[in-house]
Amino acid sequence: MSETLSLRALALPARIQAGDDLGALIAARSGPLAGTLVAIAHTVVSKAEGAVRELADVVVGERAREIAERQARDPRLVQVILDESSEIVRDAGQVLVCQTHQGFICANAGVDLSNAGADERAVLLPRDADASARAIRARLSELTGESAAVLVTDSFGRAWRHGQLDVAIGLAGMPALDDWRGRRDSEGRVLNATWLAIADAAAAAADLARAKDSGEPVVLIEGLSRHLTAEDGPGAQALLRGRGEDLFR
Amino acid sequence: MSETLSLRALALPARIQAGDDLGALIAARSGPLAGTLVAIAHTVVSKAEGAVRELADVVVGERAREIAERQARDPRLVQVILDESSEIVRDAGQVLVCQTHQGFICANAGVDLSNAGADERAVLLPRDADASARAIRARLSELTGESAAVLVTDSFGRAWRHGQLDVAIGLAGMPALDDWRGRRDSEGRVLNATWLAIADAAAAAADLARAKDSGEPVVLIEGLSRHLTAEDGPGAQALLRGRGEDLFR
Repeated sequence: MSETLSLRALALPARIQAGDDLGALIAARSGPLAGTLVAIAHTVVSKAEGAVRELADVVVGERAREIAERQARDPRLVQVILDESSEIVRDAGQVLVCQTHQGFICANAGVDLSNAGADERAVLLPRDADASARAIRARLSELTGESAAVLVTDSFGRAWRHGQLDVAIGLAGMPALDDWRGRRDSEGRVLNATWLAIADAAAAAADLARAKDSGEPVVLIEGLSRHLTAEDGPGAQALLRGRGEDLFR
Repeated sequence: MSETLSLRALALPARIQAGDDLGALIAARSGPLAGTLVAIAHTVVSKAEGAVRELADVVVGERAREIAERQARDPRLVQVILDESSEIVRDAGQVLVCQTHQGFICANAGVDLSNAGADERAVLLPRDADASARAIRARLSELTGESAAVLVTDSFGRAWRHGQLDVAIGLAGMPALDDWRGRRDSEGRVLNATWLAIADAAAAAADLARAKDSGEPVVLIEGLSRHLTAEDGPGAQALLRGRGEDLFR
């Protein structure tokens, strides 16, 4: 028998700003955290880390201007997307599929627009979302004396399916993948290819536990204690396919 | 506040065979089902529907023989994969990425190997997994008088990320996508692109609620009643991107 899995969304204050102590905000609202996977939408992590850019301050270059004209988009936003990308994988219609400096392949390099009053700001991905997860995990441990795992998520589109799904971009205290290759299933059959992206599954599950208008960037997931580890582990970077294994770039 | 989401895995008898009444097997073990999303791994749906092929009976053609030799795979299995495919999207290394007749793009056209005693069998995807979901939903309603939703899942790889994630291949009683485009988030910001693949998120979540060696093909998901509908709806086919929108084929 497997554990029952349960997920509960947690509201945070509406306006997270650079320097806010996310660990303290979560610990004050969460109840006991031992054995919990704390899933956090990257937007609040990015804002707390100051990974935002005021569009008014962006200097637009030639390439951004050309793309923005062709795609009928804000050239300042396109410039920010280029700045966050190591490679543009597809440039078509109103779509830029990018590889980010951290190695993720996603639309617009993960850059979101945010209106803070009259000012338009771009919210970036955290500089190093695995490091973000480790830092928040350490802070939660310091404040509560309990060991939780921390997952940082973003919503990605998919090559062949409509809609977005939340995936793991940062992780600490749990492996991103559960490797069953060479092990046997309940019928004794060897599982040749079974390699489960459990961190992505947890990210997708977390997003299902909140409504988009609920202001609940944090979801507490219970029932995954079999996966949690004492060490931080290799993080979400373990999910990235190397260039040599990429059939679709 | 969102609802708490809870997921509980359910064991079924180990050997599901053609003609088995999955609805009755689930209803006898599940407890109350009203408002529940019943997620079922396609393998048992395929077996109950007889969507399997004995490898001993497969006649191997020229193309399968050529691919099998190059990829060092069983030519009978390759033939079954070709039979299940409308198009081979990638053929590289030991990988066949296929479009299935139902329109899904995935490795090996979703064909799994199964050993039933000495006989090797290929388990296919259900012919029409949305129809499978509708039929099981109707049977559950008939047996229990309660309205549940039904999701049929399979494990797919991803173009740019390691590991597999369960996705929706059949669905009844819930929309596959939750469309927030044009609506506002908790800060009043218009969500231009937010279009959530909730059926895929539920599939991923369900797989997280079981261990691969547990013999638990069914997962009962509570807490999604806001998404459940009286009608069956358009099913998982709504998730498929049209050819004209495909940037990566």
